[in-house]
Amino acid sequence: MKTENDLKRNEIRLDNKTGYRNFPMVPRVVFGQGSFAQLGDILMPKRRNSNAPFIFLVDDFFEKNEVTLCMPLMYNDKVFFISANEEPKTGQVDTLVSKIQEEFEELPSGIIGIGGGTLLDLAKAVAILLNNNGLAQDYQGWDLVSKPSLYHVGIPTISGTGAEVSRTTVLLGPEKKLGINSDFTTYDQVVLDPDLTKSVPKEQWFYTGMDCFIHCIESLKGTYLNAFSQSYGEKALELCKEVFLEDVPSSESRDKLMMASWHGGMSIAYSQVGIAHAMSYGLSYLLGIKHGIGNCLVFQHLEEFYPEGVQVFHKMMEKHNIQLPKGVCADLTENDFDILINVALGMEALWENALGKDWKEIMTPERLKGIYQRI
Amino acid sequence: MKTENDLKRNEIRLDNKTGYRNFPMVPRVVFGQGSFAQLGDILMPKRRNSNAPFIFLVDDFFEKNEVTLCMPLMYNDKVFFISANEEPKTGQVDTLVSKIQEEFEELPSGIIGIGGGTLLDLAKAVAILLNNNGLAQDYQGWDLVSKPSLYHVGIPTISGTGAEVSRTTVLLGPEKKLGINSDFTTYDQVVLDPDLTKSVPKEQWFYTGMDCFIHCIESLKGTYLNAFSQSYGEKALELCKEVFLEDVPSSESRDKLMMASWHGGMSIAYSQVGIAHAMSYGLSYLLGIKHGIGNCLVFQHLEEFYPEGVQVFHKMMEKHNIQLPKGVCADLTENDFDILINVALGMEALWENALGKDWKEIMTPERLKGIYQRI
Repeated sequence: MKTENDLKRNEIRLDNKTGYRNFPMVPRVVFGQGSFAQLGDILMPKRRNSNAPFIFLVDDFFEKNEVTLCMPLMYNDKVFFISANEEPKTGQVDTLVSKIQEEFEELPSGIIGIGGGTLLDLAKAVAILLNNNGLAQDYQGWDLVSKPSLYHVGIPTISGTGAEVSRTTVLLGPEKKLGINSDFTTYDQVVLDPDLTKSVPKEQWFYTGMDCFIHCIESLKGTYLNAFSQSYGEKALELCKEVFLEDVPSSESRDKLMMASWHGGMSIAYSQVGIAHAMSYGLSYLLGIKHGIGNCLVFQHLEEFYPEGVQVFHKMMEKHNIQLPKGVCADLTENDFDILINVALGMEALWENALGKDWKEIMTPERLKGIYQRI
Repeated sequence: MKTENDLKRNEIRLDNKTGYRNFPMVPRVVFGQGSFAQLGDILMPKRRNSNAPFIFLVDDFFEKNEVTLCMPLMYNDKVFFISANEEPKTGQVDTLVSKIQEEFEELPSGIIGIGGGTLLDLAKAVAILLNNNGLAQDYQGWDLVSKPSLYHVGIPTISGTGAEVSRTTVLLGPEKKLGINSDFTTYDQVVLDPDLTKSVPKEQWFYTGMDCFIHCIESLKGTYLNAFSQSYGEKALELCKEVFLEDVPSSESRDKLMMASWHGGMSIAYSQVGIAHAMSYGLSYLLGIKHGIGNCLVFQHLEEFYPEGVQVFHKMMEKHNIQLPKGVCADLTENDFDILINVALGMEALWENALGKDWKEIMTPERLKGIYQRI
């Protein structure tokens, strides 16, 4: 594992001494029910020639469930259906890049990611690695990418992660779960079509939506916040509350949750997540637990730190009749707990954001273990 | 004057039959008190060579009032101080472009606009015209710009217009007041430094803030709205209410109003303004009345159409002790009223957004004249 300081420096440089972050925004976005049908027109001017394909990385849910997804394939375009059952991995990115390089003489015209956070993060990383030598793990960290990525388009089919708008792609590597955080990570184009989220299974809808909700609570209650991030975070939170607590018609609800995810992702520009994310990273690293449900597993026990947020979370769980797994950490060894604690406490900036400069006095390894044991 | 249909087609194509707008966002933004100090670092990598200057178009308020504005000038960079007392004009753009072309052999490295809506719109137009032949008036309309603009940076020093984030630059031309609405209009970089708005005179602060407030009321009450624009518009409106009705500390208030302007500008992606803007365009065209105060002059009399919004507006006026000029249309001739009415009713999409498909039956020329006469 990398040291705490490496993680801090690479992942989370927020109190950047040279000034405020000059934040890259997605330069082009289309929003609307059915807007996926415009993808062909959007891609056409970006096709370099008939030998330079578009590569579609698509959640295999759309293969297995025969959900209609009419992709605008031309020439030698290629679709890879990929399972989102596990968190995206650096090795997976390297394999995809090799396959593409072996199969095509020319660099692709671009990469299209279609799915949830896993697919969106994979597509970002593949677009980077196709134009930068080496392995995905070499670029995990802050601003390590030197050459622009290939043109890449993000199309979320589930709402909440904010991956469609963020400047990072979080990957499980051999040594760490860490983002490739760079200006070249951000998508060149995003298509926000709420209709694509119609087929999301209910529990997945809930857990991924909670990624956004928890993210907002953590950043709004954090010490790093400024007015830019606050305004996006507040709007995202408000939309989450509408979607998960009120009785919004389903079409409107899909629209609103897609916008919540978008604003929630934007709010990270000048803010940071907190305790649930730090602890959830540990669960992902050790147990391979997916990010959305991992956040929920942790957040339910954080009433001391986010009293109001946790109360609202329980109301949402109840309204939608969600049962979280129990006893997830019941059979862990002492060594396992040490790994969880090391990974979580390594995310220094998240703790500092949550608890202030003196966070180490507040969150001791013993106290942290106590919370993990309740999961 | 152009015909109603020309105006409609060019300015406002919203119910675009080929699909949803693929909206260009500002690809790079920095936010923070004092962030203006980062401008030199931001521009450095964009300097093509020492003969390709940056041209700064700056509100002459900063010259006349000796407000410190430490511009990062190098080599042959040039500053033009420009009055914002009048609405920006196509002829003014053409003159600036000629001057720059005569003085410099090379194309500039870029254009920096520093000021309110007038300066921000001028800088956008100059950046377009330096790379596209002809006159500014040739490009007033929808997507008439064929070549990319020069790199251009927008730095608002007053909050409310949304010009820093919009894809248009609204200019008074010989024939019309109309925007150059194109993907190349949007800024490449925006610097949001709330400290720059410290020196804004109170009335100007109010009128420009009301541009944002009125814009939000009009788009949120309009028939064109979707969830994307609604979420931005609601947040902008909420921030305006905080700033103008609550007692927010001045530093926080500047932060919030700058974000209100930003979100308000974003909300236009899939929405449209309404009656106050249509009528205010008439006042600008005939009487040269500035956009911010023009909106206020009209909006105060629109209680039939926006009852709640007009009520809140009067509360804001009262709280800040704002006295609007009276009798503005008192001495107008019948011919003057015809011009006002023609310009205003020419903005068909604004009326349709406000009043629905049958707007012509609701807003007759006589009724419109009655409102103008109260101003």
